[in-house]
Amino acid sequence: MKTIPVHAAAATPAAETFAFEAGGFADHNTPLILNCWYVAALGAEVSRDIISRRLLGTDVAMYRTLAGEPVAVRNRCPHRSFPLAKGKLDGDTLICGYHGMQFDPSGRCLNMPSLPITPSNASVRSFPVVECGPLIWIWMGESDMADEALIPDTHWLADPEWKSVSGSYYMKSDYISMHENLLDQTHFPFLHPGAIGTPEYARSKLDVRQEGEVIIIDRQLKNSPPPGVYGVPTGLTGKPVHRYSEARFASPALHVAFAKIVDPTPPEGAQSDYRFNITHIFTPESRGSIHYWWFNSRDFKLDDKEADEYLHTASAKAYLEDVDALEWILEVVKNDAQPQFDLNFAPDKPGLLMRRVIHERAAAEAGYTF
Amino acid sequence: MKTIPVHAAAATPAAETFAFEAGGFADHNTPLILNCWYVAALGAEVSRDIISRRLLGTDVAMYRTLAGEPVAVRNRCPHRSFPLAKGKLDGDTLICGYHGMQFDPSGRCLNMPSLPITPSNASVRSFPVVECGPLIWIWMGESDMADEALIPDTHWLADPEWKSVSGSYYMKSDYISMHENLLDQTHFPFLHPGAIGTPEYARSKLDVRQEGEVIIIDRQLKNSPPPGVYGVPTGLTGKPVHRYSEARFASPALHVAFAKIVDPTPPEGAQSDYRFNITHIFTPESRGSIHYWWFNSRDFKLDDKEADEYLHTASAKAYLEDVDALEWILEVVKNDAQPQFDLNFAPDKPGLLMRRVIHERAAAEAGYTF
Amino acid sequence: MKTIPVHAAAATPAAETFAFEAGGFADHNTPLILNCWYVAALGAEVSRDIISRRLLGTDVAMYRTLAGEPVAVRNRCPHRSFPLAKGKLDGDTLICGYHGMQFDPSGRCLNMPSLPITPSNASVRSFPVVECGPLIWIWMGESDMADEALIPDTHWLADPEWKSVSGSYYMKSDYISMHENLLDQTHFPFLHPGAIGTPEYARSKLDVRQEGEVIIIDRQLKNSPPPGVYGVPTGLTGKPVHRYSEARFASPALHVAFAKIVDPTPPEGAQSDYRFNITHIFTPESRGSIHYWWFNSRDFKLDDKEADEYLHTASAKAYLEDVDALEWILEVVKNDAQPQFDLNFAPDKPGLLMRRVIHERAAAEAGYTF
Repeated sequence: MKTIPVHAAAATPAAETFAFEAGGFADHNTPLILNCWYVAALGAEVSRDIISRRLLGTDVAMYRTLAGEPVAVRNRCPHRSFPLAKGKLDGDTLICGYHGMQFDPSGRCLNMPSLPITPSNASVRSFPVVECGPLIWIWMGESDMADEALIPDTHWLADPEWKSVSGSYYMKSDYISMHENLLDQTHFPFLHPGAIGTPEYARSKLDVRQEGEVIIIDRQLKNSPPPGVYGVPTGLTGKPVHRYSEARFASPALHVAFAKIVDPTPPEGAQSDYRFNITHIFTPESRGSIHYWWFNSRDFKLDDKEADEYLHTASAKAYLEDVDALEWILEVVKNDAQPQFDLNFAPDKPGLLMRRVIHERAAAEAGYTF
Repeated sequence: MKTIPVHAAAATPAAETFAFEAGGFADHNTPLILNCWYVAALGAEVSRDIISRRLLGTDVAMYRTLAGEPVAVRNRCPHRSFPLAKGKLDGDTLICGYHGMQFDPSGRCLNMPSLPITPSNASVRSFPVVECGPLIWIWMGESDMADEALIPDTHWLADPEWKSVSGSYYMKSDYISMHENLLDQTHFPFLHPGAIGTPEYARSKLDVRQEGEVIIIDRQLKNSPPPGVYGVPTGLTGKPVHRYSEARFASPALHVAFAKIVDPTPPEGAQSDYRFNITHIFTPESRGSIHYWWFNSRDFKLDDKEADEYLHTASAKAYLEDVDALEWILEVVKNDAQPQFDLNFAPDKPGLLMRRVIHERAAAEAGYTF
Repeated sequence: MKTIPVHAAAATPAAETFAFEAGGFADHNTPLILNCWYVAALGAEVSRDIISRRLLGTDVAMYRTLAGEPVAVRNRCPHRSFPLAKGKLDGDTLICGYHGMQFDPSGRCLNMPSLPITPSNASVRSFPVVECGPLIWIWMGESDMADEALIPDTHWLADPEWKSVSGSYYMKSDYISMHENLLDQTHFPFLHPGAIGTPEYARSKLDVRQEGEVIIIDRQLKNSPPPGVYGVPTGLTGKPVHRYSEARFASPALHVAFAKIVDPTPPEGAQSDYRFNITHIFTPESRGSIHYWWFNSRDFKLDDKEADEYLHTASAKAYLEDVDALEWILEVVKNDAQPQFDLNFAPDKPGLLMRRVIHERAAAEAGYTF
């Protein structure tokens, strides 16, 4: 586990080597889905200094125009494959560091110094990007499918009624397993004892539903003391409360969880409802490595530094436990001389629904019909 | 060369890619033999703290029950592939660190906390293990072939009439080459000058025989001063003695050497015979990496710390020379753009017999008949 | 980028996996050309201490005889593949460190200690080597084609009328790209701003011609102030001079550039012509790694330490810029999930001619005829 590096290199094996099967479930070998909005970077990471990052197997160079608009282009000059992020900016123009070839933010060549005439039909691929709150979303699939309406909702990250703490990890695992991990809350008491796991919770009633390609799970647990991560910031540690939580696989790029803690007997003048929105963002670098950003947002104690500190520390610890576990698992799966067909149990249902959705999208992109 | 790590990762390529040929000799590419007892660990390494080690391409988790019995199971939860060695023990029960799935020492599932009923037909593979003296033997092949009578004899390692010094290496080579190295004593004067190599010895008469799958070589060298490793502990340095030595490829897991130094004219009251049993244990982690343990045992000066110290230092030095040489060789063999068909000479006969035995066993396991 | 290590390991994939096509251009995947003289080492690197170095995918051991003649043999004993560079010398005889097998400089076996009779038909492959000035050339292709007349001319490196400064890099790129880089001077102002790049130069008239398998480019730039690397040593900084330069792809192993700076109005008693010969030597370790040596030679100020210092620093800086750029490019090319067909422009012509020459030689060695 490391924090996200600006330059990282890992290849994605070609999709053609993968055999899809009818009714299959995606796993760490499933080709990545391109026709989807992913987070390329935090807005705060992209500036007038060009950075590069491998996203879905392709190196992308990112910078901002003088007007502050984010730009993302393939990090490979179309002439001799020089990484454009090693070049420089002149105004809004990106200049290759090898032969000085110049590109505008749309990727069109503006000048090739060694030629008398600009080869204006030359270009580098530019990717659609949209900045929403703290996030820069990118579309790396077929350009004419890049519909901004498909960008999933994370408005609370920029809403002044909400306060967020956040962090990021660069991890050597697959995003399928990370999504499955988040759709499965029965691991809380074991992988995260103390902070977010209470034994009752693992057996609390689970409601699972699928809305199109979105998988939603709901849990309710009434009259039970909250785990630390909800008890400490609300001040309700030890008090029986009602806990409502919805977790949703929103897209291959995003998992969001909406939690509400209700104090059934609030002290006079105190509020009864406390909401937490948890945002998990996954952008595969390759089939076996992920850029992972998380946000823990709350609608109370917006200016409370102690709550910030507590929630940041507790969240970072819990998500690092996930990161470590999923890295160990992929290492086991990849290095084992003998394959294993994992057992599935009833609580795995939401994860399997998600894996079927991803399998079908990947198969469709590869041209398979069943 | 490193000392043996508790966690190590290296994959064994699938056996199917290997082409057997009639009358062939095993080499570094030959699939590993599964139906054989190997040493999984020293008894002293296995405790109430779970450890993991890759053996024959499979990760194995090991611990002891409350009663002290060693247990070895596949280090991969059958549910979501979490490495079980990262879990914990509750009495004799191994608890997965991801969802809390519980297994008894036989591998049977005792509880899955998120389920109302235990999936008692679920299990993790448990491997037969037998503790003999300082060694824990494991059988990773077909379970119904795990006959304890097949465990090769190393009784001197636990016999109070014998005293042993020992050491271990984790090495990046193949066990075939290590066996061949030990069956070929003509390298002593060159790779181990001084300690165990004397020039006469390389040309001393060699007797080779095969008993079933065991290859035995005998050498006698009379009236010749012993090399340091035999001369110093016996106090016979410089004196002409008779040296009898038998080296045997006992199994793919074990090479043992029985040496006897005879003083033809012992001083009054002194003994004339001094015996050394040398035990070399190889457990392939993969085709190109080995867990290697050695023991140097003697039947005299049992409580002599100086003899311990000398024999440990001299043995560790000599076996490290072997380790280095065989690591260099595998590196040469694997990286060379052009294959080489090694020349064979008369003294290579015992090694070739051994390589034929291993080739035939591997071919049989792969279902080949010639 | 690192300085050249004596021991380095990198395999060259088998040539058979490559598909040649009529009229094709060599790239980083093209099989290496064996029938060519390459530089194995500087003479100063080879002594009575045996060294090894991987050249064209094969490990080579090198030493000098008592008479000082350089010897190069395959670094792999024909008996059990022990790396011969780990052995030792006894006079002119190379002794394997494993079983003491002895070889004369021609590679013929002189003795195998464990055998009663020398297996004199046993041998290790010895490669023809020729020492020319500071360089030791080696022929690793078909022995009967090793014609010394084919060694390209670099006489100025040993001519007392010339003074050279030099350096070396071990780099992770391919020699095709390095040759292309040197045949393309339009990158000077961008990759090497200041030192050797002036904007006018990138657009100066270029003359390209092919003489057999040699590609030659000529440029002239009149009445223009020289870049630092020519201006500082000549003392002509800022003065309009004539600059003539010829760069030639002499062989897959060698690029040479001949530059002449002419002062059209020399001060009384001062010379008007200043010559620089730049020698770039590439020996592929594998398709993706190169041993690179460079020399910057001049025919004036032979004893001027300041000129030495300046030219060494400026050259090392510029060539390191090339090394970095080409390493970045190969990393991009190898890791990118999607292939790119690079655009070619008019100034790429000399590089493309060179790539066609190498493609044809590689195809011929692989037995292709078009």
